[in-house]
Amino acid sequence: MTRPVIGVVGGGQLARMMFQESVALGFDLRFLAAADDDPVVLAGGRHTIGSADSADDLRAFATTVDVLTFDHEVVHLDALASIVRDGTLVRPGPGTFATVADKLTMRAAMRTAGLPVPDHSEPVDGAAAAALVERNGPHVFKRSHGGYDGRGTHFVGAADQARRLVDAIVADGGAILSEPLLNLDAEMAVLVVRGVDGRTIVYDPVRTVQHDGQCRSVQAPSGLGPEVEARARELGVAAAEAVGAIGVLAVEMFVVAGRLLVNELAARPHNSGHHTLDGTVTSQFENHIRAVAGLALGDPGPTTPAVATINVIGRGEHDPRTCLERALEVDAGAHIHLYDKTPRHDRKLGHVTVCDDAVERALERAGRVVETLGGQEVPS
Amino acid sequence: MTRPVIGVVGGGQLARMMFQESVALGFDLRFLAAADDDPVVLAGGRHTIGSADSADDLRAFATTVDVLTFDHEVVHLDALASIVRDGTLVRPGPGTFATVADKLTMRAAMRTAGLPVPDHSEPVDGAAAAALVERNGPHVFKRSHGGYDGRGTHFVGAADQARRLVDAIVADGGAILSEPLLNLDAEMAVLVVRGVDGRTIVYDPVRTVQHDGQCRSVQAPSGLGPEVEARARELGVAAAEAVGAIGVLAVEMFVVAGRLLVNELAARPHNSGHHTLDGTVTSQFENHIRAVAGLALGDPGPTTPAVATINVIGRGEHDPRTCLERALEVDAGAHIHLYDKTPRHDRKLGHVTVCDDAVERALERAGRVVETLGGQEVPS
Repeated sequence: MTRPVIGVVGGGQLARMMFQESVALGFDLRFLAAADDDPVVLAGGRHTIGSADSADDLRAFATTVDVLTFDHEVVHLDALASIVRDGTLVRPGPGTFATVADKLTMRAAMRTAGLPVPDHSEPVDGAAAAALVERNGPHVFKRSHGGYDGRGTHFVGAADQARRLVDAIVADGGAILSEPLLNLDAEMAVLVVRGVDGRTIVYDPVRTVQHDGQCRSVQAPSGLGPEVEARARELGVAAAEAVGAIGVLAVEMFVVAGRLLVNELAARPHNSGHHTLDGTVTSQFENHIRAVAGLALGDPGPTTPAVATINVIGRGEHDPRTCLERALEVDAGAHIHLYDKTPRHDRKLGHVTVCDDAVERALERAGRVVETLGGQEVPS
Repeated sequence: MTRPVIGVVGGGQLARMMFQESVALGFDLRFLAAADDDPVVLAGGRHTIGSADSADDLRAFATTVDVLTFDHEVVHLDALASIVRDGTLVRPGPGTFATVADKLTMRAAMRTAGLPVPDHSEPVDGAAAAALVERNGPHVFKRSHGGYDGRGTHFVGAADQARRLVDAIVADGGAILSEPLLNLDAEMAVLVVRGVDGRTIVYDPVRTVQHDGQCRSVQAPSGLGPEVEARARELGVAAAEAVGAIGVLAVEMFVVAGRLLVNELAARPHNSGHHTLDGTVTSQFENHIRAVAGLALGDPGPTTPAVATINVIGRGEHDPRTCLERALEVDAGAHIHLYDKTPRHDRKLGHVTVCDDAVERALERAGRVVETLGGQEVPS
């Protein structure tokens, strides 16, 4: 089975970029998309319309492919085990997926493996949450399951607000973890790709800039020094082994007083690796496909001294696609990626990557293009 | 019309690579494919099945798009003018296309523009062809129209053979040009992309290795020295202006005693530019789309000191796709491109590109991967 049929659960921009990166090697990818205007559908990907949260839709989709993989975590987890029993490979496996999809489970797995994570509490109701804020000041509250792009993540300074927020989440059936706000030196991420044989490759660590829990920009080299970078690689590989990843594992980390803490994991291609499309030998998307297909992985090394990616984030209903013509004129060397998503405020609509000799220059150039597309204000 | 709907006449590997390269910018490409198993159809491109040589099929297809462009030259030329009258943009224009699609017309256009071309004759029948070979030794005979990849090109050493060949072509209604065999220092190619505003960009000249008229490998830098390279760029731009190109114009040249002669033109993405997918800032495919859409062109500069591409050519009925797993293990940094074509002897089925610090090393590495895929013997 040199080129198994790969089913991707999800039809968003990650699915779209997997599709784009599958053409050269001739992989047959099928997508379980939520709607006819999902990014991968508009790009021409073969698809079934269905809900990733429906066990029936997932199982029916799985019968049409050899291997199942994912572009998001909002998936009916119980269905995955039965899909494996029915003979479809699920990569990453249901265990990995369940661990990573839930923040409390993930934190427990990291602690068990001896990896450093931020201190957190698990307030069971609004009163407990309010007490945390009263005692230790501003906290961040995160839904344990189902959040993404800052949705499900709340920065709270007042006890009353914490009480209302957490009571509402608990009433909705969600579990919560909370952390006192940390004084971060920086945030960074490392992408590990792990093959079915357990071998791993690691992309150069990147520095990320987040705003309200949403990734705004990514840069490499990280500028955080060789020791921090070496430690990030080490933690990334250890995390991938701890959760038994197959394919991309994105490991997001905090740098606090020079020390690294594992904050989040994602067992799929990730926003912190979009620069790999234009600035490394093999993109994270191609390597994810190669890994879940059971094939040898490609070189993750950089093709440029420095690279920066800035996300194009929706501002009101402005459509960056209408500014493409001008944006292409701004910088002949910029790589503009648009996801063909309906514009909505704060929605990720695309990204711009620039390779250059220095990170500062790459960021500045990408920023000019993003401004022309009419995305968010560029992070400084 | 920032992102016009672009209709591509043809569904082969060039169409497939245009498709792959259109996703990031979100272009809507439609393809006039010959069959359901054309490479672009298997990759998921939106398509209509029809014949590019049928005026009706072409005209019907043209009504569904804003701009018409091409992945090959075997097109019903008379239909193009009426398509323009009916309001669809044709880029390159019908005049450019007609000039380039016919070797005799193209040679005449080059001479008119003062560009150097090889001496040729136009034998009207077998007797004239035989006389040429008797008088001046071995010749190459080329059909003026409709040849590609060495089909329609014949190396002939014996007068009798020339007589039979040319009588057969004439009986078939074809015109012929013939050239005495030249003593070539090398062959090279330069890709020019010309925008609707007449501005041009030029990719670094490449050295090409042909076998029986079919391209086997491409390397950059060409190794032919700065003077020859500068002259190649100059001739490339002059040729693009002479034929009024829009989009990619591939200009193939002979180097004879240090002097450059324009041999062939192709007004579309071309085999001599496949390395641009992996070794330049903007690929020829993206730049072709940007040009025919009337948008600013991207940086054609290299991202690597050296790059080599070797074609995967069909050998008997061997299917290189069956060797992909092993080929991926040979070299983690190689870029393997497979076109999903049914294997046939001498058919181009894919290519492998390697970027490295030196051309020799890139060629050697690409060669090992091509050998593993079971393509042709690697040119030395």
